[in-house]
Amino acid sequence: MKLKPIGRVFNGLNESPGDWTKVKSKIILERRYIAGLYKMNRFKHVWVVFGFHRQRQTVLRVHPMHDPEKPLVGVFASRSPTRPNKLGITLVDLLSVKGNVLTVRGLDAFNGSPVYDIKPNEEEIDY
Amino acid sequence: MKLKPIGRVFNGLNESPGDWTKVKSKIILERRYIAGLYKMNRFKHVWVVFGFHRQRQTVLRVHPMHDPEKPLVGVFASRSPTRPNKLGITLVDLLSVKGNVLTVRGLDAFNGSPVYDIKPNEEEIDY
Repeated sequence: MKLKPIGRVFNGLNESPGDWTKVKSKIILERRYIAGLYKMNRFKHVWVVFGFHRQRQTVLRVHPMHDPEKPLVGVFASRSPTRPNKLGITLVDLLSVKGNVLTVRGLDAFNGSPVYDIKPNEEEIDY
Repeated sequence: MKLKPIGRVFNGLNESPGDWTKVKSKIILERRYIAGLYKMNRFKHVWVVFGFHRQRQTVLRVHPMHDPEKPLVGVFASRSPTRPNKLGITLVDLLSVKGNVLTVRGLDAFNGSPVYDIKPNEEEIDY
């Protein structure tokens, strides 16, 4: 399946800050998808599906958090980006939705990462 | 980005059972990815990333659950498969991992759906 970005991440980060939980990012959606954000602002948390766009390598057994002292686990038992399909999926705080711009906190994606989908936090779905 | 399936869903279902929560499915992984499942069996719940492989349409505002009485919401505020990128992401019960076969419960995917990734339930990560 071919994925096309629906938007991009803007946070100025080109290397890991260590702790991503306080990082604020903007997701700028392509304008043609604005209608898809209708009533999104009712959610306090959303899932962001994005691409590890700088990652090329696939490694099937990894040391979690790149820490050689942590015993190896399979890549599917980890969040390592060295997966066969370079997709990240992170639950973030949704701070605001204005036009085609979402402001989120806690997204562990580098600047310029392609965004492929946004999904509601199911626990908050009330319809 | 081009995704390639790492495996497929087998559950014999070609139409929705209404309630998917009790549906058991097998995910048969391509054998070359077996190493990626190492220590996966420590998890009781995992995320399955799969393709809505029968869905072609994109609709940006939808009635949740196909129910015309429910007010419209944006597709990104819903779980509708009519999203720009036809990806489903579901937290399932992991019943067993044997060789290249995972047995799961609660996966809302039709028979033959391509699987693109499996990720651990973060709340259970203990490393």
